[in-house]
Amino acid sequence: MSEPVYRIVQFGLGPIGQELVRLAIERRSYKIVGAIDIDPAKVGRDVGELIGLGRPIGVVVRADAEATLAETRPDCVLHATGSYLDRVFPQLELAVRMGCNVVSTCEELVFPAAGHPDLAARLNALARERGVTVLGTGVNPGYVMDTLPLFFSGVAQAVTAVRVERIQNASTRRKPLQEKIGSGKTVEEFQQLVAAGTVRHVGLRESAYLLAAGLGWTIEHYEERIEPVLAERRIMTQYFTVEPGRVCGVDQLGRAFVAGEERITLHLRMYLDADPAYDRVRLEGPTSLELVIPGGLQGDRATTAIALNAVPRVVEHAPGLVTMVDLPLVTARH
Amino acid sequence: MSEPVYRIVQFGLGPIGQELVRLAIERRSYKIVGAIDIDPAKVGRDVGELIGLGRPIGVVVRADAEATLAETRPDCVLHATGSYLDRVFPQLELAVRMGCNVVSTCEELVFPAAGHPDLAARLNALARERGVTVLGTGVNPGYVMDTLPLFFSGVAQAVTAVRVERIQNASTRRKPLQEKIGSGKTVEEFQQLVAAGTVRHVGLRESAYLLAAGLGWTIEHYEERIEPVLAERRIMTQYFTVEPGRVCGVDQLGRAFVAGEERITLHLRMYLDADPAYDRVRLEGPTSLELVIPGGLQGDRATTAIALNAVPRVVEHAPGLVTMVDLPLVTARH
Repeated sequence: MSEPVYRIVQFGLGPIGQELVRLAIERRSYKIVGAIDIDPAKVGRDVGELIGLGRPIGVVVRADAEATLAETRPDCVLHATGSYLDRVFPQLELAVRMGCNVVSTCEELVFPAAGHPDLAARLNALARERGVTVLGTGVNPGYVMDTLPLFFSGVAQAVTAVRVERIQNASTRRKPLQEKIGSGKTVEEFQQLVAAGTVRHVGLRESAYLLAAGLGWTIEHYEERIEPVLAERRIMTQYFTVEPGRVCGVDQLGRAFVAGEERITLHLRMYLDADPAYDRVRLEGPTSLELVIPGGLQGDRATTAIALNAVPRVVEHAPGLVTMVDLPLVTARH
Repeated sequence: MSEPVYRIVQFGLGPIGQELVRLAIERRSYKIVGAIDIDPAKVGRDVGELIGLGRPIGVVVRADAEATLAETRPDCVLHATGSYLDRVFPQLELAVRMGCNVVSTCEELVFPAAGHPDLAARLNALARERGVTVLGTGVNPGYVMDTLPLFFSGVAQAVTAVRVERIQNASTRRKPLQEKIGSGKTVEEFQQLVAAGTVRHVGLRESAYLLAAGLGWTIEHYEERIEPVLAERRIMTQYFTVEPGRVCGVDQLGRAFVAGEERITLHLRMYLDADPAYDRVRLEGPTSLELVIPGGLQGDRATTAIALNAVPRVVEHAPGLVTMVDLPLVTARH
């Protein structure tokens, strides 16, 4: 029996999209049949060349999404263009309208009912009408702070609270991420970035609401705060040098209240030279349980892995807008 | 909208069965409607009294499984009577024939195709015919050495090998378990227990085959060895005193070979005063990933939790004999 081959159109060829293509090409069970991006510097180029594969793969980046999807008829669109659902919604709607299953790394799509219940309902209705399945996933949101604690809760007799800590060492990450977390800024500049909405990691809220949904809890109140992490000594990375007292990263805390109590605490600290880095899940209850990933899951690698690994589950699943909790186990089967 | 209540018959009232009942009674979404056991010391007693609840629950233990199932018509049977599929098969067959979904802690049922492909096929066919779902689960097999590494592999770009280590401190466990692992025996006596098949933990093979199935690997060869752990100093537990040089537990190793290489290694060490105790999963690949549960999941508590937590997923699932990899996420929703 030969394994199925999933025909993929990559929608968005930023860092995540390029890594998705790279990973798909390595696997026999996936075939890139189309690529979409509006960046004039990318349009017209062969995808293999664009991602530095050193050889063409016979797929050229196109700006016309509708024509690409119509001509290639993929099993699944891998969508990686943005974090905010309202902004990427027309792209998702188009893919679904064209009869394509979608796996997207759009952070707000991981639990779209949290921030955009109307858009979620529209997308769900359209997906069912067209007989396709739509999933938002990634490492965070999508795994470390939501699906992983929920999966872990399976062996818990009772859970009264979920606390997740994710400490990422940004020094090992790509330049745009080091820039995004405010590396080298003053506290004042950092606050301006916060006000402009460019520094905040998107998805803590989605994780909290997905957790609550998976545990059968109703969130009465959700709040989030964001603070800079300041360098205590000079930090030098491949891209930035940060003097003591300047910003070297971000400390973000999401708290959800259920029945008057803080039952979900999500703490993300992403900063240069974070040591030790780790992901930690604690399930509180009569018997508390703890789980640690030493070093922490590397964001881009884990996000692209889970998105690609989810494709078979999404293709096989009943139509509609789904979450990671609805799918059978996503594994690195290939 | 009110939550569904799952009507449960508990089949088997040993330590695991009693803990399952205790847990189900604590949750509003489960209702014990029947209890089956053949032990004359248990038959005729109220389940609440039997488990030490201090009050009757109005359900009396009966020996006649068929009559109990016919009269109570449960949504799901929680089955906990034995580790070997061939021995418990008539009980499972009966429950399915009576139209009941089944969640069982029978170790070999976690991946029955590994040891009993014929029985698995028969049970699957019967379950489909009767429109019910059958699942084998537990902490080990069922979680730590199979479902957990598979779930973890979802964030892996590629996995070339899976290594799991489970170090359990048997000093904190119940007496039958301390006895089962050979506490206080001489090495010779231990070897006799091994030959008699009473000391071996059942399920490493099932975990290996479930892992392989979830990753799309074909096991060419599987082997297992078992050795005693010897006390280095006098060990005293609530139930046993073990002199230096005597057996204080078991060291069991399962190894599965894929394409000529040992790609699955499952190492279980369960012994008195094990310190530190932990569960550790390592996924090898271009980027290796590690996950640790400090202290390790306590066997009985985790097994009863996952079995009970799986009930809603099993009741809702399409008919047939399924594994943990087929189900959507099992969570502590209640």
